[in-house]
Amino acid sequence: MKYMKAEIVSTGTELLLGETLNTSAHFLTGKLSSLGIEVDYNTTVGDNPERLEQVLRQALGRTDLLVTTGGLGPTVDDLTKELVAKVLDLKMELHPSSLEQIKQFFGRRKAPMPLNNEKQAYFPENSKILPNPIGTAPGAIINKNGKTVIILPGPPFEMTPMFNNYVWPELQKKIDPNAERMNERVLKVFGMGESAIEEVLADLMGLSNMAMSLLAKRAEMHIRLVVRSSIKTSEEAIEALNRVDKEIRLRLGDKVFGSDQETMIGIVGRLLKDQKLTIATAESCTGGLLGAALTQEPGSSKFYIGGVVSYSNSVKQGLLGVSEESLLKYGAVSEEVAKEMAEGIRAKTGSDVGISTTGIAGPDGGNDQKPVGLVYVGLATPEGVQVEKIQLYGERESVRQLTVQAALNRVRLHMLNIERRLKFGDG
Amino acid sequence: MKYMKAEIVSTGTELLLGETLNTSAHFLTGKLSSLGIEVDYNTTVGDNPERLEQVLRQALGRTDLLVTTGGLGPTVDDLTKELVAKVLDLKMELHPSSLEQIKQFFGRRKAPMPLNNEKQAYFPENSKILPNPIGTAPGAIINKNGKTVIILPGPPFEMTPMFNNYVWPELQKKIDPNAERMNERVLKVFGMGESAIEEVLADLMGLSNMAMSLLAKRAEMHIRLVVRSSIKTSEEAIEALNRVDKEIRLRLGDKVFGSDQETMIGIVGRLLKDQKLTIATAESCTGGLLGAALTQEPGSSKFYIGGVVSYSNSVKQGLLGVSEESLLKYGAVSEEVAKEMAEGIRAKTGSDVGISTTGIAGPDGGNDQKPVGLVYVGLATPEGVQVEKIQLYGERESVRQLTVQAALNRVRLHMLNIERRLKFGDG
Repeated sequence: MKYMKAEIVSTGTELLLGETLNTSAHFLTGKLSSLGIEVDYNTTVGDNPERLEQVLRQALGRTDLLVTTGGLGPTVDDLTKELVAKVLDLKMELHPSSLEQIKQFFGRRKAPMPLNNEKQAYFPENSKILPNPIGTAPGAIINKNGKTVIILPGPPFEMTPMFNNYVWPELQKKIDPNAERMNERVLKVFGMGESAIEEVLADLMGLSNMAMSLLAKRAEMHIRLVVRSSIKTSEEAIEALNRVDKEIRLRLGDKVFGSDQETMIGIVGRLLKDQKLTIATAESCTGGLLGAALTQEPGSSKFYIGGVVSYSNSVKQGLLGVSEESLLKYGAVSEEVAKEMAEGIRAKTGSDVGISTTGIAGPDGGNDQKPVGLVYVGLATPEGVQVEKIQLYGERESVRQLTVQAALNRVRLHMLNIERRLKFGDG
Repeated sequence: MKYMKAEIVSTGTELLLGETLNTSAHFLTGKLSSLGIEVDYNTTVGDNPERLEQVLRQALGRTDLLVTTGGLGPTVDDLTKELVAKVLDLKMELHPSSLEQIKQFFGRRKAPMPLNNEKQAYFPENSKILPNPIGTAPGAIINKNGKTVIILPGPPFEMTPMFNNYVWPELQKKIDPNAERMNERVLKVFGMGESAIEEVLADLMGLSNMAMSLLAKRAEMHIRLVVRSSIKTSEEAIEALNRVDKEIRLRLGDKVFGSDQETMIGIVGRLLKDQKLTIATAESCTGGLLGAALTQEPGSSKFYIGGVVSYSNSVKQGLLGVSEESLLKYGAVSEEVAKEMAEGIRAKTGSDVGISTTGIAGPDGGNDQKPVGLVYVGLATPEGVQVEKIQLYGERESVRQLTVQAALNRVRLHMLNIERRLKFGDG
């Protein structure tokens, strides 16, 4: 049997109380999609027998592959296996070697097995049991009438290894080489909104062999391209993706900063390392976030020297050499101060590039001339210093994060210019 | 009309591809639960008109309060409002002032409004419109035939403020005073593990009128207490919570750093402000994260002066005055260097407190003597300098975050000591 579509049922009252984030469903949808199995629905339901039964019945009525998480614990609330058995009209049976393993689990902890836990060794008849080396709840795979149900525990640290070790290999066997799979490409854009991108790419969005969708991610826009193919024809599909990828980059130019797993900070780090340049930061409104971003990935000491968080004017003057005159005349949030901060950190640390941020993160401190969200980003290089003035919107943390992204993008564009000059000669 | 039960429908294909974690549903279930509104189902469905319509129809068939997130974008895929209108048999109407606001949104960005975005100003007739100051998609509340539908945008940074500002006050008006509600208290603990807490609180965990659960959150442990009551009897419930709260603080001492909405950084900031002391940071392995944490909340310029990110040894020497001898003799990750960094930043900035971090965040750079996760936190005050040596475990970002928490906790304990001395006299 070949799976094309799947459905996930997550059970656990804690998921509906705002206590626990449903990371298991996130993990499972990602894994199933990567196999070309489309997840149509993910339903989360509490530990309530009537509602859970109804959800399982509905799911099995419309899909061939059902994956459940949760409800395998030792308490009377935990009813997933029992209700799957009821819906599929199967008897519950003791699985002796699972019982043995649960007893051993408690043995290792020098505790007798509570009677409740015996329940965890019962499964719908004809189940293939999935061992759980981390907890006491084994999982199961059940096949009946052309339907498959995969029963997994709720806690992600038990569910994830069980899926990877036992479910993933089973699923891979059942992918039809002729079945459709999704070949995906995500292009990441900075500095262009959803509708502007849509206008520029309107004709490409109508391509019959490719689905294109846009997704807003804080400072970034993601363009997601999907071409369906069989495994046999996936090479052609990837070629089609490459063609459209190239066309989009041609149209959007350096607004596209990367693709798929690439991140803004990863790209900036790579450009700096490739060109053997060092960078230092002078931060006011971002308070250290820009330095934190630049040191996020291992190996960042190759290009990041350090920086100053000049939150107060005294530190701007004392550690960066910003002039008192500029602070008095233009204020801390000004083009002039951003310029002196970037030049100052470059001079103090001897870095190739100095980058500065000063702005009003809010919610207080804004006025008519300088509203909340007004930010200056300074970039000092051997060729001089430039300042970009930006007006951002949103809450304090959002303004700070967007400032970091804007500063990184400024560095990226500078590095791309250097790269181009190196390639094509300098005038 | 009084709401007792609700249902959440999350739409967006990205939620079913493993791309985006459904944090919005998590937020909403938490908020609704805290009002005593039980969320029975959360269904996630892709941007597919047939499936979304079917899910909306089913939800409205079994619940009186439906909250939707997503599907309010300007593209043809975005159909939530249109399908809610269809299911409730309502016409779509232009809302002129929303159109005006969307135009202004683009105006502020000095861009003309793309035609597509006009769609975002259309709503089912009789909608109460919820403004979106951050994005272009307003939300809506619709009442018909005793059913309420609350339509919210997908991105959490747009959805959350809209919910807090406009939806929360509406819901509060509609709570049944006789309905059961959960009175909750969360006590937050730093520096004590789950089983140690469980041992100390074993007898309290068995209290019949109160549910107590432990939740591990990265560096923190949260003790969650819940007492059920009606709104009428909630005063008694809160008294019961206060009694147990007091008892837990007595047993765990200053391991309990706060409760409910309080955060480690919020507490540290308040202690510094109360005592009118200033702080400055000298960071190596945290790369700016500690400064970023200290400046997270508005008003942080009252106590945070600034800092140095001394990622390279040259910056440790040049901007902090760490001696070359110590760097050569002990290495950058050492008690001696942590001490000189903390003293250095205090001297350079004139702050009351200087706090430093130096460690091996990994994954590379560790060895037998100095393994990955080894961190020194230095604290310099007018009374001298102390260094704490910590061994942390986990991935790079986790080590960095835990270092920030350990440093903040060090400052907190120092401030509590000062407070105690002020209260009880100094010897």
